Amino acid sequence: MTRQLERQKCKQTCEILQELDLDVWMIWVRETAQMADPVLKLVLGSDLVWQSALIFTKSGEKIAIVGNFDSDGIEDLRLFDQVIPYTQSIREKLRMELDRINPSQIALNYSRNDVAADGLTVGMHELLLDYLKGTPFLERFVSAESLISRLRGRKTPTEISRIQKAIEITEQIFTDAAEYLRVGFTEQQIHRFFHERMREYGVTSAWEAERNPAVDAGPDKQFGHAGPTENKTKVGHLLHFDFGVAYQGFCSDIQRMFFFGEEKGIPEEVQTAFETVRDTIRAAARFVKAGRKGHEVDAVARSFIQDRGYDEYQHALGHQVGRNVHDGGTLLAPLWDRYGDSPMGTVEKGNVFTLELYVTTRNFGQVSLEENIVVTKNGCRFLSTPQQELICIKPKAK
Amino acid sequence: MTRQLERQKCKQTCEILQELDLDVWMIWVRETAQMADPVLKLVLGSDLVWQSALIFTKSGEKIAIVGNFDSDGIEDLRLFDQVIPYTQSIREKLRMELDRINPSQIALNYSRNDVAADGLTVGMHELLLDYLKGTPFLERFVSAESLISRLRGRKTPTEISRIQKAIEITEQIFTDAAEYLRVGFTEQQIHRFFHERMREYGVTSAWEAERNPAVDAGPDKQFGHAGPTENKTKVGHLLHFDFGVAYQGFCSDIQRMFFFGEEKGIPEEVQTAFETVRDTIRAAARFVKAGRKGHEVDAVARSFIQDRGYDEYQHALGHQVGRNVHDGGTLLAPLWDRYGDSPMGTVEKGNVFTLELYVTTRNFGQVSLEENIVVTKNGCRFLSTPQQELICIKPKAK
Repeated sequence: MTRQLERQKCKQTCEILQELDLDVWMIWVRETAQMADPVLKLVLGSDLVWQSALIFTKSGEKIAIVGNFDSDGIEDLRLFDQVIPYTQSIREKLRMELDRINPSQIALNYSRNDVAADGLTVGMHELLLDYLKGTPFLERFVSAESLISRLRGRKTPTEISRIQKAIEITEQIFTDAAEYLRVGFTEQQIHRFFHERMREYGVTSAWEAERNPAVDAGPDKQFGHAGPTENKTKVGHLLHFDFGVAYQGFCSDIQRMFFFGEEKGIPEEVQTAFETVRDTIRAAARFVKAGRKGHEVDAVARSFIQDRGYDEYQHALGHQVGRNVHDGGTLLAPLWDRYGDSPMGTVEKGNVFTLELYVTTRNFGQVSLEENIVVTKNGCRFLSTPQQELICIKPKAK
Repeated sequence: MTRQLERQKCKQTCEILQELDLDVWMIWVRETAQMADPVLKLVLGSDLVWQSALIFTKSGEKIAIVGNFDSDGIEDLRLFDQVIPYTQSIREKLRMELDRINPSQIALNYSRNDVAADGLTVGMHELLLDYLKGTPFLERFVSAESLISRLRGRKTPTEISRIQKAIEITEQIFTDAAEYLRVGFTEQQIHRFFHERMREYGVTSAWEAERNPAVDAGPDKQFGHAGPTENKTKVGHLLHFDFGVAYQGFCSDIQRMFFFGEEKGIPEEVQTAFETVRDTIRAAARFVKAGRKGHEVDAVARSFIQDRGYDEYQHALGHQVGRNVHDGGTLLAPLWDRYGDSPMGTVEKGNVFTLELYVTTRNFGQVSLEENIVVTKNGCRFLSTPQQELICIKPKAK
């Protein structure tokens, strides 16, 4: 079991602890096959059965306290300097290690804003309070949100190259689809085609397979997370996809628009809507830069589109992509309740974001696109090849 | 999207609320593709992106308050009497619904003992407290542990038949393996064979694929959760498997012992160890009955094996199996810290348990078996076909 990526992330963890001047990060979990703290995929890549404490220190120590049946497997990964097994209860070994390290702060995985940093459950938290009763550590807990946001958001070159590959395969499947598509196909039939191609290319679904890709044919289907239906493609109609694959554990997330008919047959309001969405994404990408706040980037796109006379989109302009298709951390989002503090976060070098939005036409439904970018030293770079024109599916002569 | 099983479980939920005289159960989640409350697979079978409240009442009402982009998909499932969408914040709609219902208790998913009932995270809990600030509901939260334990543990006939099918395929693969196995194969090679068969039979891994099956060849490998190695099968050695598959979302979990050599070549200490483990499982099965406490069942096996002069096994005799290979609820376990209160739970009709234990021989390593049972009206019934004898792999003439 090679765990090169996880090793890089463990190293990065200790660097970020130094940067934040945070003594200890503790991942506190059990039965992770049933419900895994989302950080485990990043730094461990394996499951833990028994109550377990994974401890990272500012000085670079990495310690795992795990049940006796888990310990061999965890040792094999060679990610930890020390693997401490226990049989009946983790309590004593946990207290001994914390006493030895005596950290001023212990960062735990709870966060109102970021699901990716909110892996600690209420029951496990109560257990921890109980195990550490009477110690000074109870007063030293802090949220690991900013640590996790940095760790997850700052993609290593290996991580970026896997995301890039996921995107390439996604785009290849769209190219295959342009060959395959005909007037009169149902959304469900098209959905099956995408799944056949995914199997062929050896990738899995970046989210719930039933709803990936979202396939929306014609003007009457609200985009969103509903599954494919018996709706059929028709001449003069748009076809929308929201599609992502997972390649070696890393995701893509791309939206594309097709039109059934000749280029010259594209109605003006459709063409204008398409260009507006495309140009808004370009404008947002030009504005993206390390140091910007998430909500500032969203605001640029939101006002751009409103200036063109469209209603604002009812979602965020962009989320991070990585291990998960919604990868937590800073959001490119408006300051709405439901986004919590995530739009206040800072865009960092190495972050991978979606840029996505829709506008609504009078007669043809919604037009929506989504691209993926990586934040660079001086701005950002598209990881996807931005869609420039509607992809036209010409009705074939019989 | 048919959700027949989920519909049955939603109905069961309202019945259990009546039985427990509990007004409301609320599942309170977000971004479940990234970290799903384990109950969602039971009652929903789909993902939710936005902060969502799924509310079940004692009077049989089922209400979902979900983000606008989730609502169509959730309506399509036809599991809820009412699907209430929101755009910017769930706060008002949540407060309005709770005001209308005015429940005396609201069961939430937190539990020290049971990971399956501990899906509420600390951050989401804080958000809920914030959203309901100033309402009387803050004082009315109770743990949903006993509800979830009943709901998950009381398998419907459909659930049992899927588990049964998973077990049949598991046993078929063991039969295939008996044909395939030869002296000199590595654990890794054998592990690959199992995965080829799983693909062929259209099932997936019941736990982390890297460690499923556990393949342990020879006397020096500690059983546990370590992955397969370059260890080779040898004449006169034992070979151990811990293997489970998932069939249509339901798991099996079976251990089997093979011996390389003729039946008459089985060393006495191996034969005695095998018979002891086999007979302990039989004795425990005879004792299992609805109404027994989990720890009482474990104690029968534990003393049986110690009476035969072996050390006690360092784990629980049995866990429940279902949607998850470790399916939460009552455990057949000793009263050790690490099992919390789970061994104090009551065995119920419809529960599916493993019965598993090992003994250690002087010269041949461990001997470990695991069977699966379902609790019936008057006792229990084996879902697996209990292993009666060591499966001997005869060295072939060259």
